[in-house]
Amino acid sequence: MSEQAQCTIPGIAIVPAIKRRGRVAALGLAEGEAIKAERLSVLELTHEGIPGDRHAGFLRPADVRVPWFKRGEAIQNERQISIVSMEELAVIAANLGIERVEPEWLGANLTVEGLPDFSFIPRGTRLFFPSGAVLAVTDQNAPCRIAGAEVERNLPGSDGLALRFAAAAKRLRGVVAYVDRPGIIAAGEEFSVRVPEQWVWRG
Amino acid sequence: MSEQAQCTIPGIAIVPAIKRRGRVAALGLAEGEAIKAERLSVLELTHEGIPGDRHAGFLRPADVRVPWFKRGEAIQNERQISIVSMEELAVIAANLGIERVEPEWLGANLTVEGLPDFSFIPRGTRLFFPSGAVLAVTDQNAPCRIAGAEVERNLPGSDGLALRFAAAAKRLRGVVAYVDRPGIIAAGEEFSVRVPEQWVWRG
Repeated sequence: MSEQAQCTIPGIAIVPAIKRRGRVAALGLAEGEAIKAERLSVLELTHEGIPGDRHAGFLRPADVRVPWFKRGEAIQNERQISIVSMEELAVIAANLGIERVEPEWLGANLTVEGLPDFSFIPRGTRLFFPSGAVLAVTDQNAPCRIAGAEVERNLPGSDGLALRFAAAAKRLRGVVAYVDRPGIIAAGEEFSVRVPEQWVWRG
Repeated sequence: MSEQAQCTIPGIAIVPAIKRRGRVAALGLAEGEAIKAERLSVLELTHEGIPGDRHAGFLRPADVRVPWFKRGEAIQNERQISIVSMEELAVIAANLGIERVEPEWLGANLTVEGLPDFSFIPRGTRLFFPSGAVLAVTDQNAPCRIAGAEVERNLPGSDGLALRFAAAAKRLRGVVAYVDRPGIIAAGEEFSVRVPEQWVWRG
């Protein structure tokens, strides 16, 4: 029994939960089939995401990001909301040698500032907004050719940029999230962040 | 620009994705308001979880585990399915000085074996079953007094065990998950496990 009891504390280092604050720099809605988002000053969230946004819904069709599913079949939607950071957009622009990357070119719903290495903010992190709205982070986002093409379309004379975009934006493309509690998010407001306990499992 | 470009590789160690295999040891359904689960040989999953199980639904009422919400308000349901491991149930039993803890006493829907330190399997891990069913892990589960009371109820003469349960089962209580793709799970079958990239963010 003593041998088994040892197993109650596996050799896994647990990093305690962390609290931080961030600020809403911009908000966007990608209507219908549009990639490019329209900039807004307020975003209204329901449990299914942003009404009218192309990523709204409890379910979504599987895409190339989840190659273990058949393309198009209905899976749980953990990509209702796409979030990027001002700081990382600046790094993507620098990597591409261009002046700026606007969040709406990437179809981002929420652009934050004040959170370093934002794309690495862990799964399960909650963002709490003054209205009571809560977002739950599900995964790091991956850059894709489609967003790169949109960046190119917005920059006359930037031919070929789409092909360089994925490499320039790798691990800088922010995160995706779902709406844990509905509410509104307003441009300029601050929000609090709760990062859950973290550890690495090696199995 | 060179200074910014450095930021593209933050000082975060990324552990690559891991593949493992496990086996289904037991299946259970907690009907209506019951805590105790009924043992089954096959579990049918929809996108809302297990039809008839008390944890089914796209949404769930907030409880004591999420103290930042008002008790009872509707939040996204990331606890459709509760999963424990045979190995950890044995450790809980040893910690309590009892012969065994049956998974149905804890209302577990799925009991697995073959995955060490199962309660630490990371958020975002996917379990792939032969039918095509896929579960996505959302969080480590936390022991509660209610489950402890159920264990006590099933063991005549174990008075007071409920109070010791939370400590004995801490970080051994398995994980919770949602149904990513519907399908069936059968007792005895093997499944594959995809643990996503892991890292620790210190912000």
